[in-house]
Amino acid sequence: MDRPGAVGQLRAAVEAFAKAHLDVDDQWCVALSGGPDSLALTAVAAQLRPTTACIVDHGLQPGSAAVAETARAQAFALGCVDAHVICVQVGSPFGPKGGPEAAARAARYAALSAHRHGPVLLAHTLDDQAETVLLGLGRGSGARSIAGMRPHDPPWCRPLLGVRRATTHAACRELGLTPWQDPHNSDPRFTRARLRLEVLPLLEDVLGGGVAEALARTATALREDTELIDALAAAALPEADTGAGLRVEALAGLADPVRRRVIRGWLLAGGATGLTDKQIRGVDTLVTAWRGQGGVAVGSALRGERLFAARRDGVLFLRREPV
Amino acid sequence: MDRPGAVGQLRAAVEAFAKAHLDVDDQWCVALSGGPDSLALTAVAAQLRPTTACIVDHGLQPGSAAVAETARAQAFALGCVDAHVICVQVGSPFGPKGGPEAAARAARYAALSAHRHGPVLLAHTLDDQAETVLLGLGRGSGARSIAGMRPHDPPWCRPLLGVRRATTHAACRELGLTPWQDPHNSDPRFTRARLRLEVLPLLEDVLGGGVAEALARTATALREDTELIDALAAAALPEADTGAGLRVEALAGLADPVRRRVIRGWLLAGGATGLTDKQIRGVDTLVTAWRGQGGVAVGSALRGERLFAARRDGVLFLRREPV
Repeated sequence: MDRPGAVGQLRAAVEAFAKAHLDVDDQWCVALSGGPDSLALTAVAAQLRPTTACIVDHGLQPGSAAVAETARAQAFALGCVDAHVICVQVGSPFGPKGGPEAAARAARYAALSAHRHGPVLLAHTLDDQAETVLLGLGRGSGARSIAGMRPHDPPWCRPLLGVRRATTHAACRELGLTPWQDPHNSDPRFTRARLRLEVLPLLEDVLGGGVAEALARTATALREDTELIDALAAAALPEADTGAGLRVEALAGLADPVRRRVIRGWLLAGGATGLTDKQIRGVDTLVTAWRGQGGVAVGSALRGERLFAARRDGVLFLRREPV
Repeated sequence: MDRPGAVGQLRAAVEAFAKAHLDVDDQWCVALSGGPDSLALTAVAAQLRPTTACIVDHGLQPGSAAVAETARAQAFALGCVDAHVICVQVGSPFGPKGGPEAAARAARYAALSAHRHGPVLLAHTLDDQAETVLLGLGRGSGARSIAGMRPHDPPWCRPLLGVRRATTHAACRELGLTPWQDPHNSDPRFTRARLRLEVLPLLEDVLGGGVAEALARTATALREDTELIDALAAAALPEADTGAGLRVEALAGLADPVRRRVIRGWLLAGGATGLTDKQIRGVDTLVTAWRGQGGVAVGSALRGERLFAARRDGVLFLRREPV
């Protein structure tokens, strides 16, 4: 039997995903940018189920409306039952973190979530996953930050996470499709573009190849590990949480990674934001290295207040102070 | 109070390590190459406890005997109570994996282990840890391969894992020491040298700084996670292991990462070697996706035999076949 072509490989990946994760009669949407990954995914998806293409126009580049309109026409030509353009307003790129890429992503996911009917197929490939792992490495917050994107995180579906980007490009060629080439993908002002064009090729050269696949395998393994420990922490929380705080005695009996996740979850539930590994370990010393020390400052999601985790009478509690 | 100089920072790191991990009256050895990291560590260690310097001459570079003799003389000048040179024969660099760096490392650890008295201080820095994480990423075997070096893995002690390499270099300058500059450290034929000189500077540039620290934090967090899950797997093994194999019923109730680690440990105990993530997941499908399939091949540590994991009557067992 011949090795299947690129389109055949994509179809097999989408079918396997659907079999594992979706109901037989789900209709689905595809998030379509007009680029090669999402165009190839749309082509394959529309052959399998009634498909609606959702095209987000971020309005960030000159001519974005024409790009969106071209993608809409391609979606109908590929057999989509519907295709619509959603115009979004991208929030300030000068927020505390993430920059313009994060702002555009947040706006895109919000728009897709509001306009979707059923699950939404996203065209992230193995190469995107590898780039995500490298981005997370720079944060250094352990498994959580390098566990990458989930294949299925309803309503989001990423059936191509095991497929190389080269395959989606080849599929477009097989189908005679002309995808849009996003100039941001080769713009060195964007971190992800530099990871793709500079860092990954250098790593492949230095480490002897197979790096993108290795990063994607790492993402899978770490996601499984961290989901397990998150589940252990969720199970341990009720025993520790008094409603007014966390009982140190209950925390002290937990394994280190479980205890720190309990603390992390409790801080987040109490309104902390932008938590760093260092802050969580600082709060943890109120349990593991108690010598009567004062509160540990953590970022608050509310403007105008400062948030501290402190210990009194064997209980960790949150203290709020006006700035 | 002035910020402590580089020597003061190293001394604080070694003292904190000793307090946390070593008995008060332990004497110790330092593995000394003559390079800046180990020379600075030797200088600090010899001021704290009676210190023996162990200098390994790998015989791989011209003039290595003179380098070792210089290091020996420096050790005595720094106050070591003893210093000796150990000549080793480095095994074939053409083995199945690792190449010349791995062969030299194996010979070095074996020699140090044989000649040591008490714990052995190693001068690995935060930068070495970051490079180790990047090397592990290329293997893609999950947390285990990127969890980096342990601070304390008796007899090995790494008190400088939280210290930047720039600090050991500065300490040598403060002390007026002239360290040996290993030409291999800047030789692009060596993977680690390229990670240091090309990959890490590029990642720092692309990700905006702090990458070495982030990689080191990641190593710590992942080591804690994987040690926890290893412990869960060790606790689950007796329930599953019949002596003749693993009971599928007992495995099926375990969380995915725990079950795969039980399988990994059982395969290793049965003589498997060079296990890949793909092989472990292949054996796992005998539990999670059983459809009467045949055995899954894994590498055997014994020449002349092939090793298969297979399932019969609800039990996973190992089958050996002559090649």
